[in-house]
Amino acid sequence: MKTQIIVDDVEAVAIGAGILGTGGGGDPYLESIQLRRELKKHGAQRLIDPKMVEEDNLMVVVGMIGAPTAGIEKLPEGTELVRAVRLLEDHLDHKFDAIVIAEIGGANSMGPLIAGLQAGIPTVDGDGMGRAFPELQMSTFLFHGDVEVTPLAMVEAGKGSVIIPTTIDALWSERLARNLATSMGATAGLAGVVLTGKQVKDYCVPYTMSLACNLGERVLQARARGEDVSYVIANSLGGKVQLRGKIIDVFRRTVRGFARGNLIIEGFGDTASLLEIDFQNEFLIARQDGEVVATVPDMICIVTEETGEPISTERLHYGTRVSVLVVPGAAGLKTPEALCVVGPQAFGYETEFKPLLGHLPDNGEVLGIGQSL
Amino acid sequence: MKTQIIVDDVEAVAIGAGILGTGGGGDPYLESIQLRRELKKHGAQRLIDPKMVEEDNLMVVVGMIGAPTAGIEKLPEGTELVRAVRLLEDHLDHKFDAIVIAEIGGANSMGPLIAGLQAGIPTVDGDGMGRAFPELQMSTFLFHGDVEVTPLAMVEAGKGSVIIPTTIDALWSERLARNLATSMGATAGLAGVVLTGKQVKDYCVPYTMSLACNLGERVLQARARGEDVSYVIANSLGGKVQLRGKIIDVFRRTVRGFARGNLIIEGFGDTASLLEIDFQNEFLIARQDGEVVATVPDMICIVTEETGEPISTERLHYGTRVSVLVVPGAAGLKTPEALCVVGPQAFGYETEFKPLLGHLPDNGEVLGIGQSL
Repeated sequence: MKTQIIVDDVEAVAIGAGILGTGGGGDPYLESIQLRRELKKHGAQRLIDPKMVEEDNLMVVVGMIGAPTAGIEKLPEGTELVRAVRLLEDHLDHKFDAIVIAEIGGANSMGPLIAGLQAGIPTVDGDGMGRAFPELQMSTFLFHGDVEVTPLAMVEAGKGSVIIPTTIDALWSERLARNLATSMGATAGLAGVVLTGKQVKDYCVPYTMSLACNLGERVLQARARGEDVSYVIANSLGGKVQLRGKIIDVFRRTVRGFARGNLIIEGFGDTASLLEIDFQNEFLIARQDGEVVATVPDMICIVTEETGEPISTERLHYGTRVSVLVVPGAAGLKTPEALCVVGPQAFGYETEFKPLLGHLPDNGEVLGIGQSL
Repeated sequence: MKTQIIVDDVEAVAIGAGILGTGGGGDPYLESIQLRRELKKHGAQRLIDPKMVEEDNLMVVVGMIGAPTAGIEKLPEGTELVRAVRLLEDHLDHKFDAIVIAEIGGANSMGPLIAGLQAGIPTVDGDGMGRAFPELQMSTFLFHGDVEVTPLAMVEAGKGSVIIPTTIDALWSERLARNLATSMGATAGLAGVVLTGKQVKDYCVPYTMSLACNLGERVLQARARGEDVSYVIANSLGGKVQLRGKIIDVFRRTVRGFARGNLIIEGFGDTASLLEIDFQNEFLIARQDGEVVATVPDMICIVTEETGEPISTERLHYGTRVSVLVVPGAAGLKTPEALCVVGPQAFGYETEFKPLLGHLPDNGEVLGIGQSL
């Protein structure tokens, strides 16, 4: 694993976390610029090994909440997350020892580095999803019954801030926080899910920041070498290229604080397979010629066919030539308790979850998810 | 003025505050039952003379926020307001010396008495509207530039609670709090607008709890004596009976946390005048045969024609025989600064505010608004 993130890592993290974000987590362009600036100002951001944390440390999960479609036109202030962390510290009258990444997706992989730099505390190399998911309750930290979403703090660009000390359960926290995010202009900084070091150690999907960085570096290398980038990505993650083709239709709306919709990709070649993908911030389910080929919590990733550049749901548009990759999700997302919250039925689909079979990558290119790297 | 509220006052307060609520403030039936129970348990609730408060005391405004249409089918827990007060005290690390009534309308006249009894502190005899209004920024406490809505605390029936430490302005606080109230089941308890005793003294509409009680008693007396109750009410408040007639149409929806709609009343007698009234929780504007006869911040009150029982917007229905009373609003609502926030244009009407001319009541029956009684 990596022990720190430096300026030279930012491009790779953006690519890697963009892929792992399965369409969500927010476009990382603006956060990349800010992360570079903060790294230049403060030096490297230290990463903590989640298996080596102090068990009685107090840590907090941070991320932006809202619709990524709004994130690309509404400039963040750049202090939303650290202000949320400080507000929650004031509320609890206790300082946090480290920042935990809510989801290793897109911009949300970078915010926790920026917030850590601004707050002067390290970031844990791991996250609560091993990918991105659209809702607060969809976190490995919450599948074990001893961790709550509240207290949480939310901060908007501007002066508004909110603390939610208690709610009846994680779904209700999601409901309140989502409507607040909508009121705050469809995006807001959130700090919540207060964890002990031991809970981070036991429940996180470990080493996903290192994974994002390594994956991004491998993509850059593959481009430079003229390799088949789509294949390299899928192979490195133990998944496969499901289809290569052209986006022929996109339907997308910003509704109740989410980017929702679906898209259709027509495969290259004579048979012209049709692949339809639904999304809610992230890609949820892929059907090829009517048959389900992958669902949450397994990962559906869309990258440009030629360069392997990840495409987030808010950037999808007609005519892009893409590869659709399907990759097994992290083990912690596939327990019976987890599937109740992040399986296809939790998103309203009737289909049962059929886990993708992973494979050992060729050439020993194990980048792994949820494993020591 | 009265120095306390006892069990025997509850019926009168319900009637008086129902009339002063101009259709809003929430149906007082459930809160009347609870207030009687709390008064039996704790004894009388002490009222503080707003002109005699300790100037350096700290006080907080409380009331239920949401759509009164939801309030009549969703039972309150009965502790929402006191929990909001305690939560805000914890947040500020400072105890409040007294409760201030947000609006002297319907159930919201009683909640601040109940919360005071439960918290063991007195309630100020005065409020921030001299009537009821639908939105947070519509308060005499906020028209002078030195008082903010935040920090505020909101609590739902059940376990959920929220603190809003800061927002950019009162309108933005209203926006966040309103959407939260909607998420919380369309009603929630709110404690906010923290005031010094001096600010309460300088800005409140004074003695409105005494007014509500005296007005209710006068209604009960008029019923017992067989007087023309509608006339007695209008006369006591320095207003007039605009029309007596039958409700022939009601259009009402619960939209974005408000009860919105309008109604048409057909006058009795040969000429059959038509009076149309729009409402947003409270009655906003009355047009008789197409001509505006009263607007906010003056008061439009609807009572049953025979008994003078106030009718709130969520209880309006076809066929009820009613009197429409129009009464001058409190002086503090009619300054240029106030009219920007509570005048007809603040509610989207193009009409200019033309204040109703009050008159001295016959028989010296001065109950007054905003005056010592």
